[in-house]
Amino acid sequence: MIIVMKSDASKADIDNVQNKIKDASLKPILLEGTHRNVIAIIGDETKISDEFLESLPGVERSMPILASYKIASRESSAEDTEVPVGDATIGGKRIGVIAGPCAVESEKQMISVAIAVKEAGAMALRGGAFKPRTNPYSFQGLQKQGLEHLAAARKETGLPIVTEVLSESTVGLVAEYADILQIGTRNMANFELLKVVGETKKPVILKRGMSATLDEFLQAAEYILSQGNPNVILCERGIRTFETHTRFTLSLSVVPQLKELTHLPIIVDPSHGTGKRNLINPMSKGSIAVGADGLIIEVHHDPETSLCDGPQTITTSDFQKLMNDMKPIANAVDREI
Amino acid sequence: MIIVMKSDASKADIDNVQNKIKDASLKPILLEGTHRNVIAIIGDETKISDEFLESLPGVERSMPILASYKIASRESSAEDTEVPVGDATIGGKRIGVIAGPCAVESEKQMISVAIAVKEAGAMALRGGAFKPRTNPYSFQGLQKQGLEHLAAARKETGLPIVTEVLSESTVGLVAEYADILQIGTRNMANFELLKVVGETKKPVILKRGMSATLDEFLQAAEYILSQGNPNVILCERGIRTFETHTRFTLSLSVVPQLKELTHLPIIVDPSHGTGKRNLINPMSKGSIAVGADGLIIEVHHDPETSLCDGPQTITTSDFQKLMNDMKPIANAVDREI
Amino acid sequence: MIIVMKSDASKADIDNVQNKIKDASLKPILLEGTHRNVIAIIGDETKISDEFLESLPGVERSMPILASYKIASRESSAEDTEVPVGDATIGGKRIGVIAGPCAVESEKQMISVAIAVKEAGAMALRGGAFKPRTNPYSFQGLQKQGLEHLAAARKETGLPIVTEVLSESTVGLVAEYADILQIGTRNMANFELLKVVGETKKPVILKRGMSATLDEFLQAAEYILSQGNPNVILCERGIRTFETHTRFTLSLSVVPQLKELTHLPIIVDPSHGTGKRNLINPMSKGSIAVGADGLIIEVHHDPETSLCDGPQTITTSDFQKLMNDMKPIANAVDREI
Amino acid sequence: MIIVMKSDASKADIDNVQNKIKDASLKPILLEGTHRNVIAIIGDETKISDEFLESLPGVERSMPILASYKIASRESSAEDTEVPVGDATIGGKRIGVIAGPCAVESEKQMISVAIAVKEAGAMALRGGAFKPRTNPYSFQGLQKQGLEHLAAARKETGLPIVTEVLSESTVGLVAEYADILQIGTRNMANFELLKVVGETKKPVILKRGMSATLDEFLQAAEYILSQGNPNVILCERGIRTFETHTRFTLSLSVVPQLKELTHLPIIVDPSHGTGKRNLINPMSKGSIAVGADGLIIEVHHDPETSLCDGPQTITTSDFQKLMNDMKPIANAVDREI
Repeated sequence: MIIVMKSDASKADIDNVQNKIKDASLKPILLEGTHRNVIAIIGDETKISDEFLESLPGVERSMPILASYKIASRESSAEDTEVPVGDATIGGKRIGVIAGPCAVESEKQMISVAIAVKEAGAMALRGGAFKPRTNPYSFQGLQKQGLEHLAAARKETGLPIVTEVLSESTVGLVAEYADILQIGTRNMANFELLKVVGETKKPVILKRGMSATLDEFLQAAEYILSQGNPNVILCERGIRTFETHTRFTLSLSVVPQLKELTHLPIIVDPSHGTGKRNLINPMSKGSIAVGADGLIIEVHHDPETSLCDGPQTITTSDFQKLMNDMKPIANAVDREI
Repeated sequence: MIIVMKSDASKADIDNVQNKIKDASLKPILLEGTHRNVIAIIGDETKISDEFLESLPGVERSMPILASYKIASRESSAEDTEVPVGDATIGGKRIGVIAGPCAVESEKQMISVAIAVKEAGAMALRGGAFKPRTNPYSFQGLQKQGLEHLAAARKETGLPIVTEVLSESTVGLVAEYADILQIGTRNMANFELLKVVGETKKPVILKRGMSATLDEFLQAAEYILSQGNPNVILCERGIRTFETHTRFTLSLSVVPQLKELTHLPIIVDPSHGTGKRNLINPMSKGSIAVGADGLIIEVHHDPETSLCDGPQTITTSDFQKLMNDMKPIANAVDREI
Repeated sequence: MIIVMKSDASKADIDNVQNKIKDASLKPILLEGTHRNVIAIIGDETKISDEFLESLPGVERSMPILASYKIASRESSAEDTEVPVGDATIGGKRIGVIAGPCAVESEKQMISVAIAVKEAGAMALRGGAFKPRTNPYSFQGLQKQGLEHLAAARKETGLPIVTEVLSESTVGLVAEYADILQIGTRNMANFELLKVVGETKKPVILKRGMSATLDEFLQAAEYILSQGNPNVILCERGIRTFETHTRFTLSLSVVPQLKELTHLPIIVDPSHGTGKRNLINPMSKGSIAVGADGLIIEVHHDPETSLCDGPQTITTSDFQKLMNDMKPIANAVDREI
Repeated sequence: MIIVMKSDASKADIDNVQNKIKDASLKPILLEGTHRNVIAIIGDETKISDEFLESLPGVERSMPILASYKIASRESSAEDTEVPVGDATIGGKRIGVIAGPCAVESEKQMISVAIAVKEAGAMALRGGAFKPRTNPYSFQGLQKQGLEHLAAARKETGLPIVTEVLSESTVGLVAEYADILQIGTRNMANFELLKVVGETKKPVILKRGMSATLDEFLQAAEYILSQGNPNVILCERGIRTFETHTRFTLSLSVVPQLKELTHLPIIVDPSHGTGKRNLINPMSKGSIAVGADGLIIEVHHDPETSLCDGPQTITTSDFQKLMNDMKPIANAVDREI
């Protein structure tokens, strides 16, 4: 930790900061500058908070040096983590593609989509049974019945199922059916939910909050990991910016950046990340090219009749074409799909 | 609703859109333009979703005209809503100031701060018993014991208490103690929590999500209102932007803007909105000047020893000065404090 | 300057960084940490660039400690700078209000508005003769003729005139007429223009770039100051964020923050900062309450017929009311208007 | 154009709006809704400004339907434009890679880099002779001498040269030497410069402003095109967002989106767009995969000694590797490099 003192900090202020550091069993080093003084801390800086230091008189700001997450950190594992998805994994050589409708609508729909996406090469089936809707009057999902339709589709095709969990009180129910739990962007910082999901030990897809920094994103992952659940898949799904041509700005540079910061696998959601059907194909290819370990894509057998997210949903035949288009890209970066 | 067709939309596309509108018992009006066609919908546009319309072939985009919230809308009430806070209200002529520490630390601390802020003129006491912390290893609050300390401070001073509720499973417990429930920025779109809080009928302070549009903010309020709980106080607490000189960008223009869109009261949190102690005084005065109905401010008898948010916490004597400084501003806008 | 080394930096990397620092006649101090090493630089850190240091092998990042602007810095002057505006100044006790139409349209219009805003208490008259328009086919201003209309209005009322300068090649012409030159948000980082304007020694209103950090803003001011022109007035005019209810997000917290970082006066433009007529009055009052030294406001005798910026322009009678409304706010913060 | 009236707009307000539309020789169509009225305009909506309409009493907002640029619009040309770059073009099947140092430092440096990037397959050489620097005290470029070094490198290798032009007064000088003029992000809305550059008829690389919408970006291109210069290459170079792990957020979804909106070629600058050397390789591959027509990349024979942008500059051997890595990606999207 580095503490920058104000240019008009007094001798007493400087002494006070140094004493507080010593109180935490750390060693302060005073660096006397021409314009202002700086105090560096040697030792385990997690013993003292930068918030506390910044609140001391005469302190301009403090600058932490270490990452605020431990288990998620690349420093804790040089080797990439592979998270089990049915018989396969995400995070290894094979790129895992998860596909399915925004919302579960019926058993027939789910089976129909499941067969189509499996044929095209999907690794898992997605579908929302509990839906987080901005508008309280919008369709909120089929809930338990939706989970049963998902299970029926799994039985038919063998595809593991991915579905979102919205609340602590339904984690148990959802975990009975799902192979992989999904935490949506609006719940990335719902820390109570993260803890409960951590306790299940089920694989979790954690979507980045739409305005979360990478540091906050990895600390959210740490909430799950620190409950003893090592199976976290990170998902970039677009951030909120001033741009209006897309619903969100899909920030692909986080993929290679996260690869340096963490050993966890990273997938991309081009459907929510753009909100536009015509951008799914190019942005999926782009995701593979920058090093993503997988994709999660909204696919519907008839997007026109989709109960939600129609504009960003592609047809099963578009999905088949997309899988074909991605193959040479995957090969170009020494992956398979 | 206005549907803008693509310039190369076919006659069949246009007919299809018109038929879908008629299917929803609405009346389409085709406006044939020189470059492209536009279809307007007459009638209750909530009967059809813009998402659905945008997913139809040949549609470029659809533009809703009505607000997506009803009870919260200014159109539902020309009169301002006043929410009860103990014997007083927020939303009327008196500006309601809520003050207290970031976290409840001890009964002694709470009583000490409560006496000081009451003397200075605060309307209610705040204090966090359950704390949402970005880092899983940070102090998470005294929880039930913290609620008891808050209750002790209320007993001593008569000040109603405001405290944050983090999860559905603790709403019942928190509601037993609190006079006003607070929903934090990270939970603004935790819709399950909003529903449960709505059921309590307790007054709620709903903080704006750090990247929520006003439309999303008011729809979140609608989640609470639609459960039959009319007592919602909106709170601007800063948004996430590219600015780094403050933790967030406190967007004061939302105050007069919300006054046009809704009848609900609006308060401002300059502590989280800036993250800097030295900005609390000017931004509080600015909030009153733009028309806020109240403020929520972090105050500690000894910010240096505060367990969290030290850098943005002011002392009880700073708070006393701030209350004095705000009086003439309040008078200037025909309010009292 | 603080240089944080990567956790896997070699001894050779560390030696190399230290040698490069010594080559610049600075003294490196190696702080050996448990997880990684940090090198602090004692001395005048402007002798070495952080970009250069970050490009060395083994370096994770460098953190500069000093501000990158000198003349603009508060450290260079504890006393507030007052910039002359005709016989008055901006930056002293009197709050300077500059008012007038978006664009100069005719001599009659300018004289009519000038008389009205003078009567209401404005310190100076604004009006655009050269207009920066996003659309190449929009009205680009009356140019030289516009400057003459401004001069006529000054002759009639005695009000000093403020007008925007768009290009190096017209600085000479504009400076012949204007009392104060204005640099618009789109030209804040047009460094060639800043240099030429710096050479004129005329007072300059420098608008913040719509996505400029405070550091970049003050460095832009430094471009003008470093040409020997001390008369720079900073102007917050709204930043670009995800918000859509206003054209820009007016960030009032920069006003008290800039007061700490610089001795230059700071004014606010609520017209461009919100883009909405109904928000001008509250946001002007808020600007005064947070400590602004002045305002620049778009006023037109008939906004309906205004050639540009109609939606954010107020009438002369609204302006008269606004001036009255601001008086008690100004008094509340020990200023006059 | 669609004009949404306020819910409390009077009959007189509605009549007034309709009359103003008729005055502009356009035909208003009144759509009477249950909650509010809407007025649609049939005809060439460029005859009336939405700003003007929004300033009329009773109007809530107006929504333009047509794009505000014409020559740049995809509607003006279904065929992609190819811009000449020496003997080759950008915008056709071959992906054009432009490479070279941030700043021209010496003739020897330029020739050395030019030979290396040509061998690796670059289509053109970049190098800054006039440098826009945020800090007035930073190195501002070798200027005329720098242009001569660029010309020497062209003579040696035959590579066409790309260099930035900063000011109207130097457009003539720069155009004497450069094959392609570059407009930087800070000058995207320097409309006077765009006009002068438009007059030269030289190919222009126009970088997106760091907070420009696509609409503003294409209107800036229109400034150049409307001077009779058809040779504009658009360049995405990262936008300013809340993200801090990269200098800017490289928004790759604009590439396929721009392909729909315009016929102009689009290239990507991963060097400025990320600010980090280690992200250049993956983000370049991603750019090709999403459909970019080219790249502009900072390459230096010895980044450690680079006078600027060291942290985001790659070596000539990294560049050679990158060119090899991109080949299979280019082939996968039916392009060559």
